[in-house]
Amino acid sequence: MKIAIAGSGALGCGFGYMMKKGGHDVTLMDYWEDHIQAVQKNGLTVDVNGETGNVQLPMDKPENIEDTFDTVFIFTKSMGLRAMLEAIEHTLSNDTKIVCLLNGLGHAQTLAEYVLEENVIMGTTVWTAGIDEPGITHLMGQGPVEIQEADPSGKEATLEIVEMMQDVGLNGVYSDNVHFTTWRKACVNGTMNALCALLDANIQELFESSQSQSLITKIITEFSRAAEVENVELDIDEMVTYVTEISESVGAHYPSMHQDITNHRPTEIDFLNGKVAEMSEEYGFDAENCALITELIHAKEDVLGIK
Amino acid sequence: MKIAIAGSGALGCGFGYMMKKGGHDVTLMDYWEDHIQAVQKNGLTVDVNGETGNVQLPMDKPENIEDTFDTVFIFTKSMGLRAMLEAIEHTLSNDTKIVCLLNGLGHAQTLAEYVLEENVIMGTTVWTAGIDEPGITHLMGQGPVEIQEADPSGKEATLEIVEMMQDVGLNGVYSDNVHFTTWRKACVNGTMNALCALLDANIQELFESSQSQSLITKIITEFSRAAEVENVELDIDEMVTYVTEISESVGAHYPSMHQDITNHRPTEIDFLNGKVAEMSEEYGFDAENCALITELIHAKEDVLGIK
Repeated sequence: MKIAIAGSGALGCGFGYMMKKGGHDVTLMDYWEDHIQAVQKNGLTVDVNGETGNVQLPMDKPENIEDTFDTVFIFTKSMGLRAMLEAIEHTLSNDTKIVCLLNGLGHAQTLAEYVLEENVIMGTTVWTAGIDEPGITHLMGQGPVEIQEADPSGKEATLEIVEMMQDVGLNGVYSDNVHFTTWRKACVNGTMNALCALLDANIQELFESSQSQSLITKIITEFSRAAEVENVELDIDEMVTYVTEISESVGAHYPSMHQDITNHRPTEIDFLNGKVAEMSEEYGFDAENCALITELIHAKEDVLGIK
Repeated sequence: MKIAIAGSGALGCGFGYMMKKGGHDVTLMDYWEDHIQAVQKNGLTVDVNGETGNVQLPMDKPENIEDTFDTVFIFTKSMGLRAMLEAIEHTLSNDTKIVCLLNGLGHAQTLAEYVLEENVIMGTTVWTAGIDEPGITHLMGQGPVEIQEADPSGKEATLEIVEMMQDVGLNGVYSDNVHFTTWRKACVNGTMNALCALLDANIQELFESSQSQSLITKIITEFSRAAEVENVELDIDEMVTYVTEISESVGAHYPSMHQDITNHRPTEIDFLNGKVAEMSEEYGFDAENCALITELIHAKEDVLGIK
């Protein structure tokens, strides 16, 4: 399969590496100059669950890529999705499938502005990754990468991509309700990410605080109202239990939004609690807690001079 | 006048010093051992707006004081009021006036449990103070110390105390609506204190963030609903302007709740936003923002191991 990774940070590199190792024709696209030069010179080195390897593969800015691809995996930050879709337009044919594994809410609507619905495949992943230095990353995980076509006509192509991911060790799984999985994951990020960033706490510290269950329940209650607008039913108690169980498995880990704040990078709050608050105004349900949390995170970005 | 200061931290020492200098018989009461010993040995040294002096005056734990007093000024933290009232009970006669200048809401109700209403005088102060080391403090200010009797029968005594404070340079002012002043001050503390503590920001940074007006308006709106329950009318726009003007005059200063969090001390949130949230449940108005902010501050205390 001829594959491009649009947004080759930690997770993009990990996925690209696995697919290249698995025998596919993979091109990495990104804008980080040092990272591009390192990969062009020394190839991409990735540690996957403790085992390190190196692959040679092309990497460049999207505007320097002339090929078109069978499949493009998007791995930008939420706020980078729109710009990336504009930048890669010339690499897409009428048949190119776009696989979107981004965290957060509202991405299907953004994709619909740039890509035919029959080419869109939405998904979620529980794999995690990090960049050690330009050209050198690590990937951790074993859980499923769940994907589902946005339009019924895309099912066959989706199944092929599932099979490809299984073959290369990425645990591809066909989902018949990726919309639910997306909302469930948003509940995880909308609670842990936002609260740990606000409280300067790791996940274990957050869940050991006596307010955690109340705070998480308030947020998930509002997420469930927003999900209902999209015909996704989130059982509040079930979600609180799910999030709490995840917190127990990850322990004293700082979620990505905390890392963003610490490293003075913009957060993805607008695509989590902020999206729920935005939907609450459009559809007339109550989401005051998500609205306040979104404002507090933006205030924190402002105080730190993050643009 | 025979005066006791119940809770002789920074502000209590400053007030006690001014009254002693002004010729009154002043006793300091507190529980901080090093501070008590320093004052017993070297007297109390206070810098008032840049001018330093020293006075000799008795200081001890309340249980070691055998006198009764004409007037007791309470200068504990909000959460220390109840314990202090129990500790000083033996120093009160049937005529002892209690002057309560504490920040925060709900103190009149606590006082009513321990003291006859005719002996209660409520007030607010805009003076600020700090402790440099045991026995050495500073006091800054010139603004009014407004007081008013809780029961009409206490008016004459209140006017005497106003006069005493004028004589000693504390700018005593008789207020005919100290209830309003108390709520207005609570609006200042319920916005600046809570938000700066949550955002790890100083007052200038908070007000320069693009969310500040929205955040402050949300909080003040809920404070105004709570004030209404006590027949105090707070005009929301007026209050937002008032708080914003104060922020401009204080600038890059960290309010006390930020200092509490930084120094790992419990905050007074339950007597500000927490009291509004509590009243919202009792009286059935909406105060979700105050409720969330209170939980977030308590979560932050928990994360820092503050008890």
